[in-house]
Amino acid sequence: MAKAYLVSVGNEILAGQTADTNAAWLAGRLLEKGIAVVGTSVVPDDIDAIKEALILGGRKAEVVLVTGGLGPTDDDITRDALAGFLRVELELREELVERIRRFFAKRGIEMAETNKRQGIMPVGTKDIPNDLGTACGILAEKDGKIFACMPGVPVEMRKMFDEQISGELAQLDGGEVVVVRKLRCFGTGESTIADLLGDMMKRNREPLVNCTVRGGVITLHMVARGKTVAEAEKLIEPVRQDIRERLGELVFGEDDQTLGQVVGELLAERGMTITVAESCTGGLVAKMLTDTPGSSRYFLSGWVTYSNNAKISELAVDARLIEQKGAVSAEVAAAMAQGARKRAGTDIGIGITGIAGPGGGTEQKPVGLVYISVDFRGDSYVERRVFSHTRELVRQRAAMVALDIVRRKLNS
Amino acid sequence: MAKAYLVSVGNEILAGQTADTNAAWLAGRLLEKGIAVVGTSVVPDDIDAIKEALILGGRKAEVVLVTGGLGPTDDDITRDALAGFLRVELELREELVERIRRFFAKRGIEMAETNKRQGIMPVGTKDIPNDLGTACGILAEKDGKIFACMPGVPVEMRKMFDEQISGELAQLDGGEVVVVRKLRCFGTGESTIADLLGDMMKRNREPLVNCTVRGGVITLHMVARGKTVAEAEKLIEPVRQDIRERLGELVFGEDDQTLGQVVGELLAERGMTITVAESCTGGLVAKMLTDTPGSSRYFLSGWVTYSNNAKISELAVDARLIEQKGAVSAEVAAAMAQGARKRAGTDIGIGITGIAGPGGGTEQKPVGLVYISVDFRGDSYVERRVFSHTRELVRQRAAMVALDIVRRKLNS
Repeated sequence: MAKAYLVSVGNEILAGQTADTNAAWLAGRLLEKGIAVVGTSVVPDDIDAIKEALILGGRKAEVVLVTGGLGPTDDDITRDALAGFLRVELELREELVERIRRFFAKRGIEMAETNKRQGIMPVGTKDIPNDLGTACGILAEKDGKIFACMPGVPVEMRKMFDEQISGELAQLDGGEVVVVRKLRCFGTGESTIADLLGDMMKRNREPLVNCTVRGGVITLHMVARGKTVAEAEKLIEPVRQDIRERLGELVFGEDDQTLGQVVGELLAERGMTITVAESCTGGLVAKMLTDTPGSSRYFLSGWVTYSNNAKISELAVDARLIEQKGAVSAEVAAAMAQGARKRAGTDIGIGITGIAGPGGGTEQKPVGLVYISVDFRGDSYVERRVFSHTRELVRQRAAMVALDIVRRKLNS
Repeated sequence: MAKAYLVSVGNEILAGQTADTNAAWLAGRLLEKGIAVVGTSVVPDDIDAIKEALILGGRKAEVVLVTGGLGPTDDDITRDALAGFLRVELELREELVERIRRFFAKRGIEMAETNKRQGIMPVGTKDIPNDLGTACGILAEKDGKIFACMPGVPVEMRKMFDEQISGELAQLDGGEVVVVRKLRCFGTGESTIADLLGDMMKRNREPLVNCTVRGGVITLHMVARGKTVAEAEKLIEPVRQDIRERLGELVFGEDDQTLGQVVGELLAERGMTITVAESCTGGLVAKMLTDTPGSSRYFLSGWVTYSNNAKISELAVDARLIEQKGAVSAEVAAAMAQGARKRAGTDIGIGITGIAGPGGGTEQKPVGLVYISVDFRGDSYVERRVFSHTRELVRQRAAMVALDIVRRKLNS
């Protein structure tokens, strides 16, 4: 397998001010191309340190990818370090300055003088346009190895890598590709998944199956090598089927699908519509449902009824019900779901009410208590959950559980 | 300042399956102790690669902190690599095996044979107990430099560092502490901030001022050293004032404050309330406003009116207005803000309508076009923006701009 070495430049990373997410993202992308990352470094905004990392990377790998240090300020010196490493001069490229000027002009802003720095490139290197920002990338070659510098801003780096750098690495794949496919699960813990999968997760198996956890979603990575993508996928297919059989409805999607996306696809397929009435989640479920392009096909409207009055006036929740049962109760969650569904005229209504914390809990109704109701064409269902996390996580988990209930109902 | 070098061990990090959060956490902790991280590496589960990183770290710094590779399986070889680096043998410490056995026994589990590996240590090193797991830490010295190995599981590593490693580094702090304070800005780009601050952001200044950008927020970090926290803060104070004067209302908050939080505090101070009617942001502004505990004091309700019908029925937007001007127009944004404010009976109403993309754009109304209206007690304001990003970022930026308009109005 071809090898890559990653260098992240920036004092802010070394000071713990910014986590370096670029290296992990690039490592995943490179692996898919059959290129193994053999090491990564974070170095300060210092010419010698960057040069040293370039030398080290060039010794260890065929391609060295650098992120960061291409900004307009004094301490952005990746350009200078690369020139030093390549032993070439720097030159101002007027056409780059023009491109940066136009980038600002489109936004009705005059280019600041300092941005001119971003038009300076090491002689003999190729500049890589950046559609999303002013930091140009740089592509260079030395002793048959590829050195590519990209901006540190993740969204800019990702687009540049996918659209412009990735293709340059095609020559390196060594006739072998690695295919990574994912299955995404929700509704249980990592150890339960491990128990259900048993030997399948053993190390050094081919294909390899391992798992990562984030935001309550457990992602199973199936990794296989082959001469072609088709060959590697053929190896993965029986593993995927086996996992799907063992985990059943715990698996909600594949690869990078989100729960909101999967629910949206199911709704679109069935020609159904959904609405949501949120209290403690404050708009998060609506946001998740509308993260996906085309969501207007199934999502028409939603309510954030934070106050009791809003629940009464907007969703026709009975004031006496709130008084008797409390705003955080199964009955009010159900009334919110029903009220929203009726008012929006949708097939499905979600109602969520709870105590996200950190304050506001009592012995009977602790922080983390959330009632989640789904009204499915008049058929009402309520789930009571107590999440033991921070405010942010209580809200996030409650929203995920709401979407997961809808998913299971649509699939049943 | 004393220097530290960090090494993270693990194939799963290099495969992009796990982000390395340990390095950033340690960097922040070390900086507070007056120890600067001068570099970090991620290396595979490979004896030579780990040894090479230990050598490099020892050359660059007085302390080298290693995380990961202390587990019970075959590929956990940090112990072996450290022994090789120190040129000493490995020994089985029975008392460690006993400790691990007790760790399992307490949980009613019999220790697996493989866990014995975790009782093996390089001769002459100090083992560091791990209260939360079975991976012991290791403390060693070579040529007057400190080498400490800690488990890779973040919660175990953090506890071990704070309670047992941190104290060992006291000799290095040179009686100096480092204080980091932040100012958070919104509404302009990094280069404009740099221009406004001029020399203040020069490298090697004391206190040091540098900047990070995330989600449109520019964070200025002011870093000062002193014999005490009070002394360092005294050095920061005039810098903070100077920056605030130069940047004016671009600065919205300090340290880890979010825009939603700052707007919330201003509303609470003034005893004012807010509501929001969202189309393209799909609930995100409501979510941001309710991220903060206690937001029910000023946020009562919100609408996600994704369809035209919902805009008409929920917010009393005139159907003819939508027909004449289009749903994405300044007029409809203003009508949404006004309709929401009247219906909720709040002081302020926000209305947002736009084209988040990726589809749905036209020449006159391109993807990224968003109209943001704020109705301030009947006083209507509309801003037209074109964001050039992904769907996710268009939504995120539009929500941020809406909150920022409210912030500026509340401050004016």
